Amino acid sequence: MRLDSGNLPDLARGCAVLGTGGGGDPEIGLLMSLQAVEEHGPVAVVDLDELPDDGLVMPCGGLGAPTVSIEKFGNGAEGSRLREYVERLWGKPVVALMSSEIGGSNGLVPVAWAAGLGLPVVDADGMGRAFPEMQQAAMEIAGVSPNPAVMTDERGNTLVIETVGGRWIERVMRAVAVEFGARASSSEYQMTVAQARTATVRGTVSLAVRIGELIRTASDDPVGQLVTQLRGYRLIDGKVVDVERRTTGGFARGRATIEGVGGDAGRSLELEIQNENLVARSSDRVVASVPDLITVIDAHAATTVTTERLRYGQRVSVIAFPCDPIWRTPRGVDLAGPRAFGYDFDYVPVEELRAGT
Amino acid sequence: MRLDSGNLPDLARGCAVLGTGGGGDPEIGLLMSLQAVEEHGPVAVVDLDELPDDGLVMPCGGLGAPTVSIEKFGNGAEGSRLREYVERLWGKPVVALMSSEIGGSNGLVPVAWAAGLGLPVVDADGMGRAFPEMQQAAMEIAGVSPNPAVMTDERGNTLVIETVGGRWIERVMRAVAVEFGARASSSEYQMTVAQARTATVRGTVSLAVRIGELIRTASDDPVGQLVTQLRGYRLIDGKVVDVERRTTGGFARGRATIEGVGGDAGRSLELEIQNENLVARSSDRVVASVPDLITVIDAHAATTVTTERLRYGQRVSVIAFPCDPIWRTPRGVDLAGPRAFGYDFDYVPVEELRAGT
Repeated sequence: MRLDSGNLPDLARGCAVLGTGGGGDPEIGLLMSLQAVEEHGPVAVVDLDELPDDGLVMPCGGLGAPTVSIEKFGNGAEGSRLREYVERLWGKPVVALMSSEIGGSNGLVPVAWAAGLGLPVVDADGMGRAFPEMQQAAMEIAGVSPNPAVMTDERGNTLVIETVGGRWIERVMRAVAVEFGARASSSEYQMTVAQARTATVRGTVSLAVRIGELIRTASDDPVGQLVTQLRGYRLIDGKVVDVERRTTGGFARGRATIEGVGGDAGRSLELEIQNENLVARSSDRVVASVPDLITVIDAHAATTVTTERLRYGQRVSVIAFPCDPIWRTPRGVDLAGPRAFGYDFDYVPVEELRAGT
Repeated sequence: MRLDSGNLPDLARGCAVLGTGGGGDPEIGLLMSLQAVEEHGPVAVVDLDELPDDGLVMPCGGLGAPTVSIEKFGNGAEGSRLREYVERLWGKPVVALMSSEIGGSNGLVPVAWAAGLGLPVVDADGMGRAFPEMQQAAMEIAGVSPNPAVMTDERGNTLVIETVGGRWIERVMRAVAVEFGARASSSEYQMTVAQARTATVRGTVSLAVRIGELIRTASDDPVGQLVTQLRGYRLIDGKVVDVERRTTGGFARGRATIEGVGGDAGRSLELEIQNENLVARSSDRVVASVPDLITVIDAHAATTVTTERLRYGQRVSVIAFPCDPIWRTPRGVDLAGPRAFGYDFDYVPVEELRAGT
């Protein structure tokens, strides 16, 4: 597969759905990648099985609060600076870029960089969705080191970071991203192709394109078709009646309330947000939570509503669908389950939560 | 000169005076360096003229809020980790360590590290005093690049930082130091011996030892002798009647009021603090300010009172003395004059301020 102006909009739609409201506004990544492929030509999407075992894969993306990334872009040089540092640190060339997270803008930004660098992207990513924190990555679960992480901003400030593990990669990079104006670009968890084959969530670029196609071509009820395709659940059709949001500590945090309409009249759903939609509750009962995916779809345009674009009065459908199985392992739940975000309840897969309704 | 258990206490006394209340509590640096010379032998103090032109000088020290450094020490491995990174980045050996700032604990910590590494320290430093911010260095004035800066903590987290200039070195390192628990170790502005000869404040290690000797051996009125030696001024003899202090943004900030006693009865002096004593006012008139040095001396023990140890009821003398001429250049005043700290008044040398009284 090649990514060009024909299928990038589909990729963007799919990344938005997998972004669960976060990962940065896909519109920004779409504009960046459209411009890059127009200038440099299409980007090849390669399967990890097609690349040499010892080739170096560079996961990368943006870091910061999505509320800020709407207004503050990179300048395009970040990708080549990251590659230059990564190649120098590893003493070998990068054979392909990979989205650190497929969700949101971060599913597209590496495509824009890859176009400029003449490199392919791999059909895989580090999360299979978007998560707010750096260490919430399949590579972390697989034991790949995040070191040396490289971080840069649009001015050219650059850091090489070696942390002793745990949450330090997140703590250090978030603190610096805040100083950079809540927006930075980074690469971490670089690895060989051989490692990447078992340490990433595979097939997610083509999945995102398929999701985008499905939404674009659905003749009626795209939400219903999406739910079927993702083996998910339609949590509510309703109207946004309350949004509370603040940008703090480099994150966009908040909550939103959706009141049911039509067949859902009389019901309501509350979403809790930290860059991404983390938890959905109905009548104080959790109906879906991280690491499963919760996505808000605009009822009219069938587009995903990112957490920073939620507005009073929007008509939306909220859907939830199962995460990649890697996130349901004990280590996965530790890293990205409800307790990892400070919630005092255990993760229950969305299928089981829905079976009880 | 060699630094050993005989003269390290003098060095500590002198560093305290030059620390103007900041740079970390010299007691901590003294304990570290005494233990290090006991274990590894004395440390040679060398003049920059004795070293080869192309030798690599490594400025280094601690970074953070002094209020925290009283309770949170390094683990001793920081110096060797900094050297290892600096040598790898430069591709050549470090020939000597240098205090990034002679003031406070930071005048002693590099001595402790040098003992462990079997290296000399140079008879110079980057400030001739202590300043709260990283870029307030003679090397910055001389146009030496702070890159690559290396920063580490007691856990082993390590960063290599390349900034685009201005205040970025300070902003990035401060943000990370806060994340590390308001305490970190760093090296920046590494340079050749040839550069260091004109880009540092020279002779400050031996000056600090002389100041310490003078205080220790003064038979009466050590404050008076100190003022003579430093060509300074005795601003007030009095009692601390108010202290306000908070640790915020990686700094200890606050103010203290000293009420005159004896011949100074009826007068009072207000000190404004950001890690260091920045400004002294009497009846709302500035009587001394950065970059000149303002030091609080305990009237009984003749020891310097660091800003984090100021206490209600202490009997003190406050002295002020001229900074190194480098800080009185336009670039020096830009970097470390009152306006660099947000004050809305121009720098006037302490001699001129005193001439008006």
